Formats: sequence, C-alpha cells, structure tokens
Amino acid sequence: MAERPRLGLCDVREAERRLRERLHRTPLLTCATLDCLARRRLLFKCELFQKTGSFKIRGALNAVRSLVEGSERAGGELPRAVVTHSSGNHGQALACAAQAEGIPAYIVVPRTAPHCKQDAIRSYGATLVPCEPSDESRAETAARVVRETGGVMVHPNQEPAVIAGQGTIVLEVLEQAPEVNAVVVPVGGGGMVAGIAIAIKALRPDVKVFAAEPCNADDCYQSKLRGELTSSPHPRETIADAVRTNIGPNTWPIIRDLVDDVLTVSEEEIKRATRLVWERMKLLIEPTAGVGVAAVLSERFQAFPRDLERICIVLCGGNVDLSSLTWLTERPGTAE
Amino acid sequence: MAERPRLGLCDVREAERRLRERLHRTPLLTCATLDCLARRRLLFKCELFQKTGSFKIRGALNAVRSLVEGSERAGGELPRAVVTHSSGNHGQALACAAQAEGIPAYIVVPRTAPHCKQDAIRSYGATLVPCEPSDESRAETAARVVRETGGVMVHPNQEPAVIAGQGTIVLEVLEQAPEVNAVVVPVGGGGMVAGIAIAIKALRPDVKVFAAEPCNADDCYQSKLRGELTSSPHPRETIADAVRTNIGPNTWPIIRDLVDDVLTVSEEEIKRATRLVWERMKLLIEPTAGVGVAAVLSERFQAFPRDLERICIVLCGGNVDLSSLTWLTERPGTAE
Repeated sequence: MAERPRLGLCDVREAERRLRERLHRTPLLTCATLDCLARRRLLFKCELFQKTGSFKIRGALNAVRSLVEGSERAGGELPRAVVTHSSGNHGQALACAAQAEGIPAYIVVPRTAPHCKQDAIRSYGATLVPCEPSDESRAETAARVVRETGGVMVHPNQEPAVIAGQGTIVLEVLEQAPEVNAVVVPVGGGGMVAGIAIAIKALRPDVKVFAAEPCNADDCYQSKLRGELTSSPHPRETIADAVRTNIGPNTWPIIRDLVDDVLTVSEEEIKRATRLVWERMKLLIEPTAGVGVAAVLSERFQAFPRDLERICIVLCGGNVDLSSLTWLTERPGTAE
Repeated sequence: MAERPRLGLCDVREAERRLRERLHRTPLLTCATLDCLARRRLLFKCELFQKTGSFKIRGALNAVRSLVEGSERAGGELPRAVVTHSSGNHGQALACAAQAEGIPAYIVVPRTAPHCKQDAIRSYGATLVPCEPSDESRAETAARVVRETGGVMVHPNQEPAVIAGQGTIVLEVLEQAPEVNAVVVPVGGGGMVAGIAIAIKALRPDVKVFAAEPCNADDCYQSKLRGELTSSPHPRETIADAVRTNIGPNTWPIIRDLVDDVLTVSEEEIKRATRLVWERMKLLIEPTAGVGVAAVLSERFQAFPRDLERICIVLCGGNVDLSSLTWLTERPGTAE
C-alpha cells in the first residue's frame, strides 16, 4: 500500500507564515440565487482573485520560499533556477514566484499551448522551453532542463511544498466561516484537495472534504472506487482544462485516506454551472472552477443529508481564454 | 436657466435609511495591474454585485419605498402599480423593487429588446408592455399604461427619488475609503452621477466628481461645453448600451453645477478597458462599466495632477448578454 508523504498541519502552517503579506487573503462571497438552486448556503472562496489569477501561486511560492529559506539556513547561494512543466496556471505561478525571489524560471510548455498562456508565463520573466504535446516529452524535456541549468524541479502537484501551500486556502476559510460543514474542491493532480484535506482533517475532522471531477477525467473517482491509483478509462477531453491531469503517487494516499468522497460531473453540467456563476455572480471563473459548482448542484449532492448545510466551494481560478468562448453561444441545456 | 430640483444630502441620507438591510453594501476592490496602468490607486466600487446586477435597484427601491411610506403616512392603500419604460437595468430593478413590496409593475419594453433582458424582467413577476423602438412610442405607451392602471410612473433617471437612491453609492465609498480624491461615474440619463455629486459636494467638496461618457453618446459633454442641455450630434451607437440615453431636465442642472468635468472615450477604449477588467480582475462588468475605467486610463486623465491619487471608479453593472460577445474575438487594438 502506497505510503502517505510526511506532510502534516505544521507544514501547512509553515506555508501560511511564508505566504502571509506576500499573497492575497481572498474573499468568501455568497449568492442568494445559487443558494436557492443548491438548497444550501454556499460560500465561494474566490481564488480567481488570487495573484496570477489562480490558487496555484500558493503552492509555487511556498516551494520557492522553502528553497530560499533552505539556502539561507545553509549559508549558501540561492537556487540556480526552478523548473516545471505546465502550460497552465502552475507555469504562470512558478514564473511569478521565481521572479519575486530573483531566481530564473524555466517552464516547459507544449508547442500547442495557446499563445495567451505562453505570453502570460513570459510576462513574469520566465524562459519558455517548448516540448511535444505528450506526457513523455514534457517529463523528458523538464529532466533535461534540470540537468542543463542545475535547477530544481517543482512539480505542479506532487511536490510536498506545493501541496502544503495549497492547504493554506482552508486555513483562511476556517477563519472566515468557522460554521462551514463541507469543502468542495476540483481535483486534477490533487495538490489542492490533498493540502486542504490534510489541514481540515487535523483541525476539524467533522468538516467533509469532497473532490469534484469531470466524468471525462475521472481518475480520482476510479482510484477511490478501486482503492488503488488508477487512470481514467476516458479520453481526458474536458473543457475543464486545468484538471485534465491525473492524481499521482504523493497525492493519492492523502486522497485515499482523507477525502470523504469524489463527485463527478458531465461536460454539460460544467458549462451550465460556469455560465451560472458568470451570469449570476458576475465572476469570470474558468470552467475548472465550475466543476465544483456543478458538483454541488448535481442530483447526487442534492440527496446528501440536509445537515450538510454550509458548503464552501473553492473557485480555483479565473484564467479564461477570452478568444475561445464559442461554447457560450450554444443555448444551455440543448446539448449533452 | 434651468433650476435644480429640490434635492439634497438629506434625501440621500433618507434613501440610505430606506435601503439599509434591503440591499448589499458592495465591496471596494483593488487591482495592482490596473494601478500600474493608470499610475494611480484605483478603488473599484463593485455595483455589479448589487441585487439585480446593477446599481439601478438603489434608485428604484428608494422610489418604491418612498411611495409605500407616503401611503402609510396618509393611512391610504398601497400604490396600485408602478410603471416605467426601460429595456435594461432599470426595468429589472423596478420589477424587483415592486415585487419586494407586493406592488404590480408594468415595464414598457421595445419589441426589439433582447429576449434575455425581457426574461429577466419577467422573472421578477412584472408585466411586459411591448412598444415600438422609438423614444416617442416608449413615452406614449408608458403614459397610456399609467392612465389605464392608475399606476405611478418611475422615470429611470429624472425621478428625484431615483437620483437620491443612486447617491447612496458614494456614502458607502466615503466610509470604505475616506482617503478618496475623485469619483468617476458613467453617465447616461445622469441619475447616478447627479445623486453622487449631490452627496459628495455636500460632504466632501474637495473630492472631484467626473462623468465618463462614450464619444458616440456625448450629450453630457456637449451640454457642459455649451452651458445648456444639448443632444449629442452623434448617432448614439455605442457598445455601452446602458448610457445611450440623454441627460434630462432634472439631472442637467445638478451636473452643470456639481460635476467637475466630463471625460469622453472611444468605442475601442471602452472595449479594451472592459476586456482588461475581465482578464485582470476576473469581474464580468458590462461594457458600460468599462466606460469609467477607460476614462481613467485615457491620455487626458493621465495628464491630470498627480495629487488626484486615489480614484474611485463605479463599476455600475454586470448584466452582459453572454450570447453577444462577438466583439471579444476581435484582437484588441486592431480596429478603431
């Protein structure tokens, strides 16, 4: 049986200390219309307002600051560079964190990644390293860059310092709304849900932790079902591009032991929920954030006991490619 | 010379009393990226989070509550109905306010108004009365409905109780950010800028009030220039649909005497500013709210003295028709 990484509440607390004053404490918003639809009190943790437009900066900056503090303690020099592979929010986040600390960042990005995302990474002064659009090419290219630069790899979701950083979200939620009964978290690689589960089960084991996942990328659901790390049998085609990734060897044991349940939602449910948040809350969330909202509006969730009354949904990011909104013009509810 | 309506700070304070507990106190958000671009500290008053998705509910509810209180004082019955002509935010707002008070609402709407707007008005239980898409047909139809129903006309921007209600925005701003040096307000019929100017010049005459207007609907600018109520020579075609209206006999004298300056912006500037707020702040503002942002980013504003350091911009609404976002796919800055 896979062992859980040595990662506890103290690591999340350390991350909180590192990130305080450096990042935003994001607001917790409510919406009467969505409360009516969900028939519960919903508390939306607005990580789309976080620096770089997503929660990812928490993990990335915690990882970079940990490296810097490590060097300082050892009386040595700053890390030569940090390296990762990500075309999305983690790429931007690591670039931003590295820039803040004056460390070069190398971000491995598939040639096919949208220009706007490449531009965003470049705007934080990072070096883009193109690769082929496959998991193998990503990993190989990143390994080569690490060798060539003497840099440190910061994995988007399996790096323990990243997981601990994401956990800081829920320390804020517990202060902002101690009355919360459950937290709903979109799951891709699982860094966010793992960090949140570690913190919440240590502090408030009565609070449920639900992972939310597209049916089309349901490796977390399949893994929980079988009790072992399993890939999704589906083609991983989902509008929720930030959760196409699979959970991994570090996040899986935490999810296995500490996450109460995994809720899956269809593409149509994700689009409808995303559109609802845009129209009713006026928040420009990315579809990945709509996954959690869709889960809470799903029939399955509606059947949960009524004492799960106050539900926090993490709106994980707002990095929408505004030039690719064709799905919006489809009438909602007409296609499945 | 046109006389100012008898409307003062006490009316705005009365409105505040009426609206307290009934409406949201909207947050004042900031954005480091926009501060950099504007080279000033910007404070965004988020009326897009207000009930019904725009500030208009403040004026509408103040008008309806004033009628109800008047009836109660006279020991009479509730007003038979309220009537207005508006295809946009005021129509929704009056329908919502009337529903809250249990009074029938009749909203005169041009046959050509988008279905989503008609649906929104209907969702508050109001009766839609179709008219032809001309100012004459609107006014005539509304007058007929008033005769037939015995209802009370609540004009979208010339009704004094509406103007006083909109003024409550700035009472909140002065509490949230007493350090503010200027307030920038989009102007259509002028109800919001007039209400804000009345309150701010009574309380803090040192704080500047700027109206912001599309070049293509610049009747307020032309009126200030000539010192008399003047229509725009332009065809009133603007993406900022909520400010296509002209200022009127009640708002003009207030604007003439109390508004410091009127700033005009091009369609391209409005689109660019709206897109910037979407991308950087993740707030789904309607293009009309982008008018104020565009004004502060304009060359003319950049040339203003640096001691205008902390600028409040009212993000007046977020009622975007998501099915008509074709302008988004145009590359910004390529067309004028």
